[in-house]
Amino acid sequence: MSVGKKKGEVPRRAFVNSVLVTAGAATAAGALAGYGLAEPAAGTEPAKEIVPFYGKHQAGIATRQQRNATFLAADLASRDVATLRRLLDELTLTAAALTRGDPPPERDSGVKGTSSLTDFGTGLPPARLTVTVGLGPAVFAIPELAARRPRHLTPLPIFDGDALNPWWCGGDVLIQICADDPQIVSHAVRSLRARMPGLATLRWTQYGFLSTPPDGGTPRNMFGHKDGTANPKPGTPAFDDIVWARSPEEPEWFAGGTYLVFRKIRMKTAEWDLTPLDEQDRVIGRRRSDGAPLGASAEFDPADLTARAPDGKLVIPADAHIRRASGMPMLRRGYTYDYGIVGGESHEHGEGTGEHGHGDGHKNHSRLDAGLLFCCYVRDPEKQFVETQRMLAEKDRLNDFIEHTGSAIVAVPPGAREGQSLAEGLLRGLG
Amino acid sequence: MSVGKKKGEVPRRAFVNSVLVTAGAATAAGALAGYGLAEPAAGTEPAKEIVPFYGKHQAGIATRQQRNATFLAADLASRDVATLRRLLDELTLTAAALTRGDPPPERDSGVKGTSSLTDFGTGLPPARLTVTVGLGPAVFAIPELAARRPRHLTPLPIFDGDALNPWWCGGDVLIQICADDPQIVSHAVRSLRARMPGLATLRWTQYGFLSTPPDGGTPRNMFGHKDGTANPKPGTPAFDDIVWARSPEEPEWFAGGTYLVFRKIRMKTAEWDLTPLDEQDRVIGRRRSDGAPLGASAEFDPADLTARAPDGKLVIPADAHIRRASGMPMLRRGYTYDYGIVGGESHEHGEGTGEHGHGDGHKNHSRLDAGLLFCCYVRDPEKQFVETQRMLAEKDRLNDFIEHTGSAIVAVPPGAREGQSLAEGLLRGLG
Ligand code: HEM
Ligand code: HEM
Repeated sequence: MSVGKKKGEVPRRAFVNSVLVTAGAATAAGALAGYGLAEPAAGTEPAKEIVPFYGKHQAGIATRQQRNATFLAADLASRDVATLRRLLDELTLTAAALTRGDPPPERDSGVKGTSSLTDFGTGLPPARLTVTVGLGPAVFAIPELAARRPRHLTPLPIFDGDALNPWWCGGDVLIQICADDPQIVSHAVRSLRARMPGLATLRWTQYGFLSTPPDGGTPRNMFGHKDGTANPKPGTPAFDDIVWARSPEEPEWFAGGTYLVFRKIRMKTAEWDLTPLDEQDRVIGRRRSDGAPLGASAEFDPADLTARAPDGKLVIPADAHIRRASGMPMLRRGYTYDYGIVGGESHEHGEGTGEHGHGDGHKNHSRLDAGLLFCCYVRDPEKQFVETQRMLAEKDRLNDFIEHTGSAIVAVPPGAREGQSLAEGLLRGLG
Repeated sequence: MSVGKKKGEVPRRAFVNSVLVTAGAATAAGALAGYGLAEPAAGTEPAKEIVPFYGKHQAGIATRQQRNATFLAADLASRDVATLRRLLDELTLTAAALTRGDPPPERDSGVKGTSSLTDFGTGLPPARLTVTVGLGPAVFAIPELAARRPRHLTPLPIFDGDALNPWWCGGDVLIQICADDPQIVSHAVRSLRARMPGLATLRWTQYGFLSTPPDGGTPRNMFGHKDGTANPKPGTPAFDDIVWARSPEEPEWFAGGTYLVFRKIRMKTAEWDLTPLDEQDRVIGRRRSDGAPLGASAEFDPADLTARAPDGKLVIPADAHIRRASGMPMLRRGYTYDYGIVGGESHEHGEGTGEHGHGDGHKNHSRLDAGLLFCCYVRDPEKQFVETQRMLAEKDRLNDFIEHTGSAIVAVPPGAREGQSLAEGLLRGLG
């Protein structure tokens, strides 16, 4: 019950500094060879590749980013150990089977003669499906779990400029489902959902995509910039340092886990498209064309934050996104979303924005909704995410073009060993 | 002006019969070799495959179905020949460039110093991108075009049971954008949209997916059944007969064109999942397991509509979907959609259905929205689509599980020759 309670008093500043140093090294090294952590041998037909579910860490974090993702948030039907245990058992068995390409085990639907939980499958190979499960702060309000709470699991503060919509916020459980095939993702979501009745209720889902160019280069976001350049590379000490929780700082059961911070961020593409290219580059602090930091010549060159132009102005402006965000490494693993026009039977909303359109013959507004499903994995969300986001909220030239509308934080337990369920260590010895 | 006006009085019954016979033959033949019409040689890396934009017919119809699609409907900013011509020029140039993997040509955004129409690209190969453009009935209300109207372009009637939502209905122009990569589809939609200001306004968009198994087998829909078995196969005479318009039945400019009928159909997955498997099979008239017609042994066996069980009951029930739909061949090229939970800032809607959920801590409802973006290509929408849909609306065991919520019909001009724009023949000689 007292696991990791008084341990783990690592001095904050030391931790941060050590992370910074190693991360800088990894960034400078650019795309490394040891990238394919937990990946099958190259040359396998992509759709048939399998990412193992069981392992030291959960899959879907160090995994090379897949092309499609759904984030699914759910709430426990009842906040007690028994319900949580049964949910984690169901999620584990279902995820392990689906990621292998097998149908999930049978389960009685409770309605005579029905086959509701006989999963019919897709006829498709698993396309690197991963299912990554995290537990939100409310789970640790269950009395028996209070002492086992991951040390850094705290609800996120409201940041300046936040325009959060309760529709896309929170959740007792947050599941990231990724694969290189959208039908595989949709089917996995449906299979997982089918296990939830009586255990959890669906809260929200968000669907995104992001494609890595075939040469392994950095993908581009909705604003056209390469996004992910400064990420630590799986298989490096910097990556492990930045991402994985360890004891004694954390309760022992949580070693090898991590935290996931999710933000739904609307990107105002219409405003962006009307901004001159050189100003777009100054907003980010990198060139849209090739991803190089302003003043440097190639994408993986270090950013010189001190350089000044002949006129004395900073080459990378004081409020450029990468300057404001720099100094606190994290693994960003977000997805672009593009919902096109958001419609509805009697959809209504507030004042129009630059992205409102009024369809001919429509009684209601139409609205483009597109942007970033920001998702980062960090070992210390306060230091790594919250402090960075405070910096950005305070001053970031990008703020004219974005709006945070959704938010969630969860602790992501370590991977499960075959035959065990996720978060086995958390529930060990409890009712 | 009088092109195809009094010509083309082909007796309806004769047309239908001829179509039926050839289609039956193609169906029995199953998956044919000559499938890859307009496809590059096998062995090309899939993401790099290019489907030519120019050709006798528009791409995206006989093209092997890609994995992702967006349907985009727009209305002309002004219903006149000049606006339509400029729009078709822009769409043609943009689509031709994007499908080749090139950036679309520059165009001044009208705002000094901006680069809004400098397409930044995705860094991704085109992944078999196709852009297929159709013109709705209202376009032919332009006086100069009245006499050139495709003979069978008539607004669809309201069918029994229709629950149409104006949000997903109609449009002067309907564009089908397909590729094997969701980011390519999203980017193409954005590029096409960027060409529209002053020429057309966005009306609605719908996004779907459907994956063909790697062995080329039939994909499965949201109810788990194989969907598309009875489709004619590209490269066969039956296919050409069913799909392509020809003169003298049609105005000369429209020969090589076709019609696209779009229906957004919600599928009640919760109700379906609670229905026993053998009943599910009777609803469709085919086995979910392998797609074989009831009473037959393999997917491409002919369906015996006269067979009776020892107890005298029809093996394929009188109201089974394939019995009610049979007899009127069409090319179905639909996509599954799965929008997860439909949320919104102040989203409200009518009475709850079986698929309503009430998220914890939400003031509003949450609702799962998933189903089929039905899309068929036919030479005669009245005979092929409308008559079939009347049969289905009147009696179809599937009706308990589905609901039509969106609808559109367009005439799809033939393909463009390099150097010309789509529907060149339609506008020839006009102001
Ligand atoms: C829609 C919103 C956002 C956009 C479009 C965006 C875009 C970018 C781009 C283009 C880069 C440069 C390339 C790279 O290293 O990836 C970057 C870097 C970065 N971003 Fe963001 N970002 C967004 C939101 C955020 C948020 C919410 C955070 C965290 C609170 C964040 C943290 C970072 C970090 C840590 C870097 C690396 C900085 C460095 O060079 O050290 N970003 N972002
Ligand atoms: C969500 C709604 C629908 C579902 C789930 C569905 C499903 C199916 C399935 C599983 C088959 C059998 C396999 C095959 O040949 O593809 C089929 C056949 C067919 N469906 Fe549908 N369908 C739907 C709506 C429609 C509509 C709206 C039409 C046209 C009005 C239509 C026309 C046909 C035709 C022509 C066939 C082939 C019948 C034959 O064997 O000759 N379907 N459908």
